[in-house]
Amino acid sequence: MAKKISDKVINRLTLYHCILMDYIEKNIEYISSKQLATLLKIDDSQARKDISILNNSGKSSVGYNVKELKISIEKTLGFEKNKKAFIIGAGNLGMALAKYDNFQNYGLNILALFDNDKSKIGKTVNNKLVLDIDKLPNLAKKSSVDIAILTVPRTYAQFIADYLVKCNIKHIWNFTPAVLSVPEDVQVWNENIMGNFLQFTYNI
Amino acid sequence: MAKKISDKVINRLTLYHCILMDYIEKNIEYISSKQLATLLKIDDSQARKDISILNNSGKSSVGYNVKELKISIEKTLGFEKNKKAFIIGAGNLGMALAKYDNFQNYGLNILALFDNDKSKIGKTVNNKLVLDIDKLPNLAKKSSVDIAILTVPRTYAQFIADYLVKCNIKHIWNFTPAVLSVPEDVQVWNENIMGNFLQFTYNI
Repeated sequence: MAKKISDKVINRLTLYHCILMDYIEKNIEYISSKQLATLLKIDDSQARKDISILNNSGKSSVGYNVKELKISIEKTLGFEKNKKAFIIGAGNLGMALAKYDNFQNYGLNILALFDNDKSKIGKTVNNKLVLDIDKLPNLAKKSSVDIAILTVPRTYAQFIADYLVKCNIKHIWNFTPAVLSVPEDVQVWNENIMGNFLQFTYNI
Repeated sequence: MAKKISDKVINRLTLYHCILMDYIEKNIEYISSKQLATLLKIDDSQARKDISILNNSGKSSVGYNVKELKISIEKTLGFEKNKKAFIIGAGNLGMALAKYDNFQNYGLNILALFDNDKSKIGKTVNNKLVLDIDKLPNLAKKSSVDIAILTVPRTYAQFIADYLVKCNIKHIWNFTPAVLSVPEDVQVWNENIMGNFLQFTYNI
């Protein structure tokens, strides 16, 4: 991973990866750059260029070997680096993310959900327990989790972020529409859903 | 909106907008570029540059007028353009999006949800009805909806996408991890959650 890969290329590589998983399910062995490009509505040359950074050796006259290309993408993007995370907020969004089995394929291991709602605590979602938020400090330390996926209502977001910082969480994947204030050594990744939407709709 | 604004700038402008909404709730009248920049952990000069494209006149010695800056962002990004949408799939993710009141602020008007699960049909989420998917063709036509927010399980995604295309939906906001195959005149916006995650974690 010496070479820095741009965000746009990472984004496309994960989409190729989705396509490859689909091909594997359908028992299709080979795929061409043209097929990948058509699905993403991009240029064939762009797909070839993206794949050229992968050190992928599975190219033949009939196209890329689907399984080998998938492994190349996984190696390049570091899917094998296991990352442990908690979901904070067991509402609809937290539940949806807990049920999202794809996370595991990408090396993201969700250990548990946290909430302060007594009616949710103790329940299980996709084999993950919903725990009392009071138990977070101890468990974060014990399991050396450093990613918190934040899905609480906007009005609680900063309060909970402060709490996460105190629990020594260094990465907050923020699904709330709040902009969080955190110390220098804490990283916030904003899943800016409305920002994405406005990018999409800006030209329509 | 003659000038094309880059995706990264649109993204930051929506984050400023979130901050401004928060300031308005707290009855704070002015904000400096430094305050905006600190929250996003970017350079002060970057925030000033972003704001300079807004034709915002509310700058004074004490900073930008919060309400005026908010309106400037809304005008520039076209929040007032009303966009009508349906949510397809009333699972956890569909429900979470239906409950997301921010959409309305950004000009996105979600009219209804659709599902094929009889136990969900007829329910109401955030004043939006869950309707039988069979009713979609007729309603899409009647209410001239052209955005479908796709939150069905991955295995149904392509099947439903084909159905949406037949219903003359021209924009699919795809929250599933499937890469959809659609005709030339249909736009798919991939909300590539894992792609975003890998961008974030690529360097940690």
